[in-house]
Amino acid sequence: MPINPQRMLADLRELRSLTADEDGAQRVAWTPTWLKARAWFYEKLKALPVTQHLDAAGNNWVTLPGKSGKTLVLGSHLDSVPNGGWLDGCLGVLCGLEILRGLNEDYDGKPPFTVRLVDWADEEGARFGRSLFGSSAFAGTHTIGADRVRRDRDGITLEDALRQCGVDVEKIGGASVERGDIAAYLELHIEQGPVLERLGLPLGVVLGTKGVERHAITFHGQEAHSGSTPMGDRRDALAAAAKLALEIRSIAGKHADAVCTMGSVKTFPGIVTAVVGRCEATLDQRDLDVDVLAGMYADAKAASERFAAEERCTVEWSKIWNIEPIPFHPELIALCDEAVREVSGTSHRMPSGPLHDAAEVCRAGIPTVMMFVQSLQGISHNKIEDTRPEHLEMAALAFDRLARKTLGWMASA
Amino acid sequence: MPINPQRMLADLRELRSLTADEDGAQRVAWTPTWLKARAWFYEKLKALPVTQHLDAAGNNWVTLPGKSGKTLVLGSHLDSVPNGGWLDGCLGVLCGLEILRGLNEDYDGKPPFTVRLVDWADEEGARFGRSLFGSSAFAGTHTIGADRVRRDRDGITLEDALRQCGVDVEKIGGASVERGDIAAYLELHIEQGPVLERLGLPLGVVLGTKGVERHAITFHGQEAHSGSTPMGDRRDALAAAAKLALEIRSIAGKHADAVCTMGSVKTFPGIVTAVVGRCEATLDQRDLDVDVLAGMYADAKAASERFAAEERCTVEWSKIWNIEPIPFHPELIALCDEAVREVSGTSHRMPSGPLHDAAEVCRAGIPTVMMFVQSLQGISHNKIEDTRPEHLEMAALAFDRLARKTLGWMASA
Repeated sequence: MPINPQRMLADLRELRSLTADEDGAQRVAWTPTWLKARAWFYEKLKALPVTQHLDAAGNNWVTLPGKSGKTLVLGSHLDSVPNGGWLDGCLGVLCGLEILRGLNEDYDGKPPFTVRLVDWADEEGARFGRSLFGSSAFAGTHTIGADRVRRDRDGITLEDALRQCGVDVEKIGGASVERGDIAAYLELHIEQGPVLERLGLPLGVVLGTKGVERHAITFHGQEAHSGSTPMGDRRDALAAAAKLALEIRSIAGKHADAVCTMGSVKTFPGIVTAVVGRCEATLDQRDLDVDVLAGMYADAKAASERFAAEERCTVEWSKIWNIEPIPFHPELIALCDEAVREVSGTSHRMPSGPLHDAAEVCRAGIPTVMMFVQSLQGISHNKIEDTRPEHLEMAALAFDRLARKTLGWMASA
Repeated sequence: MPINPQRMLADLRELRSLTADEDGAQRVAWTPTWLKARAWFYEKLKALPVTQHLDAAGNNWVTLPGKSGKTLVLGSHLDSVPNGGWLDGCLGVLCGLEILRGLNEDYDGKPPFTVRLVDWADEEGARFGRSLFGSSAFAGTHTIGADRVRRDRDGITLEDALRQCGVDVEKIGGASVERGDIAAYLELHIEQGPVLERLGLPLGVVLGTKGVERHAITFHGQEAHSGSTPMGDRRDALAAAAKLALEIRSIAGKHADAVCTMGSVKTFPGIVTAVVGRCEATLDQRDLDVDVLAGMYADAKAASERFAAEERCTVEWSKIWNIEPIPFHPELIALCDEAVREVSGTSHRMPSGPLHDAAEVCRAGIPTVMMFVQSLQGISHNKIEDTRPEHLEMAALAFDRLARKTLGWMASA
């Protein structure tokens, strides 16, 4: 029995009407609207012979037991950013649900291997600033020490918000028991970028998630009166930062898929009548190749020091966060490529710039791959986020093929 | 009887001990500490045969009546910025007081012309953001409409704060009656810049105040995910602003004394993981020559449009404020030059980048000149603002000579 992409689209639209307002999706993790989305999802499961439970980190596991305990996991997340889109995250969960329905019918409720669908808790980190919350607890890469005291805008701590949702922050590491006998993990997601649209392709095979170097850079010059300080006497911290803002484009430009972004610049005192004495900037650098990433970081640091010297300023770097590149499993990449090609005729392999729960699962040593479906205008985290319905249907068909191919691969392994 | 520069220094130090704390001077206009400074100043006047009154804008006028009603005015301001320096403004007032003492002794209380000393109200505009308040009311260039509803950080309106100090905001235009029979205006001020120190000179002759073009510039690009948006697909508003931040140096560099400053840059959304979709910057351009100023403004505008086009962004300009260059009186400049040369051996003529009350007086058609005394490290508006005591003494002696030369010039006119 083939899956029914139209039913998946209907589910997506039903969830949107239930959890979005005129500003977009509001399924922010650990909030009533998110719990409402999950409650709706539980109702959808009632037609299937599955079990369902929350793990210690609040991840929701749906299990269709198979003849073997060896397990294929399909996963994504129902949570969204505030004023988010209708597809980011929930597409993967509801496509997984549709595939469970298909497999259940095909195998009379007993597939050769156990198949699980996971809705990861708090992928976005929108409320407390800690993304990949549930999947990193599962992977054992999350140490809660630094996060428990995080507060939302209303001053509520992460610890208190989780307790309200039945999660004890002390015990989230217990989610690692779910790793059990997992043989493969598959995730379908919208691209959130413009590459597939520009290539005119509906689907892409994801090679892995790019590593990230994320740093705060502060240039120190000398605050001075804009009227009384001749140009030659200035130590303008903004000038040094401006040079770096332009130089990072050359640094990224040396590598095919690399990106470097200066997303925030703050000037102090930041008034119209003063030369900038201190300039705080952020830098986010990403690439799938660990050596390219290290090289770009070194290049940016050297450039910042050169520009600081030219402007008679000093510069300080402080790491915000980093993560290594996470390449997906080569055999699953090949299967994904086949599935995409069979459905759409052409495949395109690409790294993912954004992180995804799949990266955490992969870090836990589980063979992993992701499939992307085209995003219109490359826009997500916004109510105008969209994908053509025919592309969503192709995504469902290709992801179903990938799941079945992976079950075959598990059988032959 | 010569003036006594040591007595002026003692007055300056006494005022500092009364109105500064560990963070610097706190004589912010329309506050209790400012009123305390003025009350202390009134006590100092008691030894002189002068009259004193506040005009309709809160300017404090001290009058030593002369044989003629034709008047020489010496002026500056007692108010300071918060955490300000010990010399900015009050040096000119207390040097003027010392000169009144000397003239009173020399002429037995009846100089040939009337001599007045004015302490302008709220030169700094530190509390309500409207500088040159009192002098512009005097000059008739201040229309109060836009300012009356200005609020300080505590939400108190300018209108209410002035009422507490006995000033009715409706009536400040009445200060223009003080213009009467004024033949010349002289102001002594610290340089607030590094030019005289670099030249090794204690004193300078001010040619006028530079005109100012002050604008807000907003570049509009496209907010985009830092991970999923390839470099070539970006419309980075920060990149356009960074190019302009560097280009303004070349624009100013074409002219000897011109300055261009980008003092504030704000990025939106301003987060580490997003390409900047909107960048708001400020530009402050100054020169003493009206054509140079107009040329620099046109150059910056054209450059901003070129950079916006290069980055596939758009740009909007919005005027914050502007003022024309205000050249001082050629004959008074010559007298000031003589006075400076007689006391220090060498004179240097220079424009003032910062505005001063003298600019407003000059706009009212009154022959005006200013004298600068060296600032250490070019720093003001800060508790470390300082000038060598021997330079302050030379400033008092030279400014006294300028006053006497100006009285002679008034007699011959």
